[in-house]
Amino acid sequence: MTNTNQSQTASEAARKAALAKQAAPKLGLLTTEQKNHALLRMADSLVAEAESIIAANTEDLQRGQENGTSASLLDRLALNHKRIEAMAEGLRQVVELPDPIGELLEETTRPNGLHIRKLRVPLGVIGIIYEARPNVTVDAAGLCLKTGNAVVLRGGSSALSSNKRIVEVLHAALSETDLPADALQLVEDPSRASVDEMLKLNGLLDVLIPRGGASLIQNVVKNATVPVIETGAGICHTYIDASAQVVMALQIGLNAKVQRPSVCNSMETLLVHRAFAERHLSMIADQFVQQSVELRGDVEARKLVPAFKEAADEDWDTEYNDYILNVRVVNDIDEALEHIRLHGTMHSECIVTENAENAVRFLQEVDAAAVYHNASTRFTDGFEFGFGAEIGISTQKLHARGPMGLPALTSTKYCIQGSGQIRG
Amino acid sequence: MTNTNQSQTASEAARKAALAKQAAPKLGLLTTEQKNHALLRMADSLVAEAESIIAANTEDLQRGQENGTSASLLDRLALNHKRIEAMAEGLRQVVELPDPIGELLEETTRPNGLHIRKLRVPLGVIGIIYEARPNVTVDAAGLCLKTGNAVVLRGGSSALSSNKRIVEVLHAALSETDLPADALQLVEDPSRASVDEMLKLNGLLDVLIPRGGASLIQNVVKNATVPVIETGAGICHTYIDASAQVVMALQIGLNAKVQRPSVCNSMETLLVHRAFAERHLSMIADQFVQQSVELRGDVEARKLVPAFKEAADEDWDTEYNDYILNVRVVNDIDEALEHIRLHGTMHSECIVTENAENAVRFLQEVDAAAVYHNASTRFTDGFEFGFGAEIGISTQKLHARGPMGLPALTSTKYCIQGSGQIRG
Repeated sequence: MTNTNQSQTASEAARKAALAKQAAPKLGLLTTEQKNHALLRMADSLVAEAESIIAANTEDLQRGQENGTSASLLDRLALNHKRIEAMAEGLRQVVELPDPIGELLEETTRPNGLHIRKLRVPLGVIGIIYEARPNVTVDAAGLCLKTGNAVVLRGGSSALSSNKRIVEVLHAALSETDLPADALQLVEDPSRASVDEMLKLNGLLDVLIPRGGASLIQNVVKNATVPVIETGAGICHTYIDASAQVVMALQIGLNAKVQRPSVCNSMETLLVHRAFAERHLSMIADQFVQQSVELRGDVEARKLVPAFKEAADEDWDTEYNDYILNVRVVNDIDEALEHIRLHGTMHSECIVTENAENAVRFLQEVDAAAVYHNASTRFTDGFEFGFGAEIGISTQKLHARGPMGLPALTSTKYCIQGSGQIRG
Repeated sequence: MTNTNQSQTASEAARKAALAKQAAPKLGLLTTEQKNHALLRMADSLVAEAESIIAANTEDLQRGQENGTSASLLDRLALNHKRIEAMAEGLRQVVELPDPIGELLEETTRPNGLHIRKLRVPLGVIGIIYEARPNVTVDAAGLCLKTGNAVVLRGGSSALSSNKRIVEVLHAALSETDLPADALQLVEDPSRASVDEMLKLNGLLDVLIPRGGASLIQNVVKNATVPVIETGAGICHTYIDASAQVVMALQIGLNAKVQRPSVCNSMETLLVHRAFAERHLSMIADQFVQQSVELRGDVEARKLVPAFKEAADEDWDTEYNDYILNVRVVNDIDEALEHIRLHGTMHSECIVTENAENAVRFLQEVDAAAVYHNASTRFTDGFEFGFGAEIGISTQKLHARGPMGLPALTSTKYCIQGSGQIRG
C-alpha cells in the first residue's frame, strides 16, 4: 500500500520520495508548453547563478584534493562557466524534443462498443542513482521533467556541494513556473544507507535507473525491490569475417577501440576469421600498437603475431574501458557467434563482412541491444540514433533496450469509454 | 557473466534454466509456421494422452484429499476430458494469433547513411512461478513458445503429478518437431528452495512472471534479482458521480462486484457522490444485498443506510475477492480521486457519469492500468481487449501495463547496417 504521509521521522530519502510522489500527478497533467517554459527557466537560472554554482563546486574540489582524489576524477568533477553553459544548453535541447506524453499508441472499438485507447503517460517518480559529474543532475532532471515524471536524484558524495547548489537554483527557477518544485528532489545524505533505502521505496518510486560503474549498477540490480532499468556494462566485440574489406575492418576496429575507450560501447575483444588473420592480422596489430593499444591474444593469434601478450581466461570477460584489446582467431562465423554468446554482455556487437549471408546471420543470431554490420559499435548512443537525448543505454530486455530516449521514461494507460457495458 | 555450463551439482532449477537458455537461440530463429506446427502437435498430444494425464491428476487429487485440501481447491485442480480438450483448444487459439516476432517497429536512415531498424525479438527465457490450476502449465507454455521464448515453469506442488505428466506429453510432441524440447522446462522440486533459487538466476532467466495470490507475487517482487513483471492485486473502485444514470450505475456496479468476485478486476469499493447517494443509495444497497453482497459503509454511507456494517480502516485496503463491498459517500470527484490515489492498486478504476468534464478528469487523473468511463472494470482482460490471449495483467508501469498479450512477451533489438561508418 502506498503511504505518502511519511512522518517527520522517516528518512530523508523516504520523505523526499513522498514529496515527489505528491507532486507527480500535477506534473503529469501539465501541457508541453508549461513543461518547456519551466525547462527554459531552469536553463536561464543556471547561467545566471553560475558564480554561486562554481563556488559550491570549489568546495567539492577542495574536499576531493584533501581526500586524494585523482586528477582525472577532479577534472570530471570541475565546473566552469563553459560547462555550466553546456548544461543549460542541454536543457534547451530537451525543450526542442517532441513531448511523448499523451501520444495515442493504439485505438480500437470492440464489438460491444467499448472504445479503448492506449495512451503514453509518465512513469510517475523516477529514482536516479549516479556517481558521475554534476551535469548528470541537470541532465536527468531535464529528461524526467520533460516526460512529466517527478525525480529523486541521489548523486555521488564527491559532488554533493555542487549538486545541492544546482538543485537550489533549479528549485528557485521552478517556483516561478507551473511545474511543482517538489517534483525535483535531491537526496543529500552521502552515506550508503540512503542508497540502500531508495532501493526499497516501493510505492513511492516507480523505477530506479542506476548510472555509473559496474559495482554501483550491480548493487542496485541485486538489492532493489523497486523495478530497475539496468544500464551500462559493455563487453563489445568486433568480428572481422573472411571477406571483410581490409581498410574498412581496420578503421571500424580502431574506431571501436580508441575513439573513446572509457565508454561502454567501445570494443574489448576483436575476433578475426583465420583466413583474414593469416593475411592481415600483423598489419592490423601494428596499427593498434601505434595507437598505444596493448594487445592480448589467444594461442592462434599469438602464432600469427608473437608480440601479443597471452590473454588470460578472465580477460575475455573484462570490460577494460582502457587501451587494452583481446584478439582471438576463429575458424568461422559459428565460433565467433559462440564466443559472443559466452562472453558478450548483450550491449553492442559488430560484424565486418562483404558476405551478405553471414551479415544476415550475425544480425539475426546475436542477442544484443545493438548489432552492427560494417559500422563501429561506438554508434550505440541516443544522439547518434537520432533520439536527441539519452538517459542511458539499457542492457536488459524488459521495458527498454539499447539507447533510451524520452519514450523510455514513459508508461502507458488504457482509457476505456463505454455507454453502460457490463461483462456477460 | 552468463554461465550455461551448469555442472551436474547445480540445482534442478539452475540446470533446467541452463538447458532452456541453450535452446532459446534456436527457438528464436524458427518461422511462425514451425512454431505453429509445434503448438498444434502439443494440442493433439494432450488430447491423445488425456487418459494418462487424468491418471496423474488423480494422484494429485488423492494427495490433496489426504492433506485436507478444500473442495473448491480440489475442483480447480481436477482434470477431465473436457478440461483437457479446453487446454488443447487454448493452444489452437494461440496458433491463430499473429506472431509478433520479427515485426519492424521503427526504421530510420541517419544522415551518415547508417540504416537502423528496431525489430521485435523474443525476451529469451521466461520463468513462470504459479500455483494455479494445471491449465496454466499448457497456457503459459503455448504463449511463451509462440513468441519464441524458452520457458521454465515452476507450478504449485499440489498439481505436481499433473504438471509432470503434461510436460512429458508436451516434450514427446515437441521431439517430433523443429522446436527444441529443451525450450520447455518444468522445475519439479516442490520445496520453497526451488522458488527462492529461480528468483536469483540472473543470466539464465531474462524475466520472471509470478501468477497467483498476493503472497506469492510479493515474495517474487521483494526477493527476485531477475527482472519481474508484477501481476495481480486489484483493489478496484467504481465512482458513481452526481449525474450518473441510475440504472447504468447500478448495472455497472453490480457487474463489477458479483459477476466474478474472485478475480482481480472485480470491484472492492463503491464511491458514491453525496447527491446521488441521498436519492439512490438505499435502492442500490438493496440490489447488492439481493445478490448476497455484504456491505460495509463509512460514517456518511451508514447515515443514509443504517443497515451497513461499519467499514474498518483496513477494509479500504483489502482485496476481498469475495461477496463483500465497501461503500463510501464522497462530496465531489476530488474526494473520489483522492481516495483512489490512496487506496487503489493501479489496476482498474471506473467513473459512472453523464458529466463529460468529470469523465475526462477521471480518465486523465487516475493513475491505473485501465480507467473506465461508463463500463464495468471486469473488462480488464486480454480477451476482452481483443488480444486473443493473456499471460496476466501487469500492475507495474515498466515494460507492460494492463492485460498482457503476446507483444508483452517480446523485447526489441536494433539492427544497424552500414558501409564502414566510424564515429568522429
